[in-house]
Amino acid sequence: MNDFMDVILRRRSIRKFTEAPVSEDSLTDLLRAGMAGPSAVNAQPWEFVVITDPEILKKFRTTLLFAKQNYTALICVCGSRRVQKNKAGDRFWVQDCAAASENILLAATAMGLGSVWIGVYPVTIYVRLVRDILNLPDDVTPLNLIGLGFPAEEKEARTQYEESRVHWQTYAPRAEKRLHLFKHRKNERVLEETEES
Amino acid sequence: MNDFMDVILRRRSIRKFTEAPVSEDSLTDLLRAGMAGPSAVNAQPWEFVVITDPEILKKFRTTLLFAKQNYTALICVCGSRRVQKNKAGDRFWVQDCAAASENILLAATAMGLGSVWIGVYPVTIYVRLVRDILNLPDDVTPLNLIGLGFPAEEKEARTQYEESRVHWQTYAPRAEKRLHLFKHRKNERVLEETEES
Repeated sequence: MNDFMDVILRRRSIRKFTEAPVSEDSLTDLLRAGMAGPSAVNAQPWEFVVITDPEILKKFRTTLLFAKQNYTALICVCGSRRVQKNKAGDRFWVQDCAAASENILLAATAMGLGSVWIGVYPVTIYVRLVRDILNLPDDVTPLNLIGLGFPAEEKEARTQYEESRVHWQTYAPRAEKRLHLFKHRKNERVLEETEES
Repeated sequence: MNDFMDVILRRRSIRKFTEAPVSEDSLTDLLRAGMAGPSAVNAQPWEFVVITDPEILKKFRTTLLFAKQNYTALICVCGSRRVQKNKAGDRFWVQDCAAASENILLAATAMGLGSVWIGVYPVTIYVRLVRDILNLPDDVTPLNLIGLGFPAEEKEARTQYEESRVHWQTYAPRAEKRLHLFKHRKNERVLEETEES
């Protein structure tokens, strides 16, 4: 458990990479991790485009303002209506593909690779640009680009746990809001008492 | 890496649980894992409701057709406009919360717990039912319910890797489709030749 938690906490967005290439075997392992993820009604509404060709990587870096990092490989995780096993994918593909993406990022961390999740969908212009470069058909939609490579920067492990984001049993507004409400009620009582006297 | 990959492959949807409760410490560890996940522009657009009260768990089991499993704890992962750190959450909350959810499922597996991802959003009626039971305000939307407990069923580790879902460098239609296209073009040429002759 500790080792596993350590990988989850060490997964950070890495944006600087060495020139060392990521092997085809490693990329295939990442896809095995991605396709082990859960999907609604097991629709598996996903396809993956893996890019290692320097010319195509350069195209992403020069065309897309938001993808200028010097990754040596990219995985584009796509929602795909043409391969999904049932209609659940129509509604759930974003979350299914996001879970597959997180598996890829974590497996990359465990393998000593750095990774960065570059958001594409639902920003229309980003979707169009990626679709054009990768020649994606209309029923295949790019969710993101995962930049990969050997890390040339280090970041500390961390959670961003905040107790105020956790509610037990049912939702309760945050402490300061409850306090505010309490004060408000107290004022009401004071008012009532004043009126009664 | 092997140990880590093993957890990813062992994460399966578990729908039968023993009566043993999940400790508050374990649930907090799961939330630490969840909140270590990535989010677009680091908006962290999430809040979590943790339910262990048998009366409320029973309410879910009797009200919701799709949540009848005998979990001993539930985590409801919510998109939250009221706590997100910036506007990126408006567009990216589903994928951000899905990545946090996958972290929770994997951490549960590593801890020896069973888990099942019960989809809620974007099915309007499911969202309304969960919102009612948990008293969620309008700007907090339940993405899913994660059922948790000690497993009373075993499933084999597996990926669902399929080579046909992977494309290298750019998207290419699947083999059978390429064949079809080829045949089609051949027919065109035959037609042209016929016309010419």
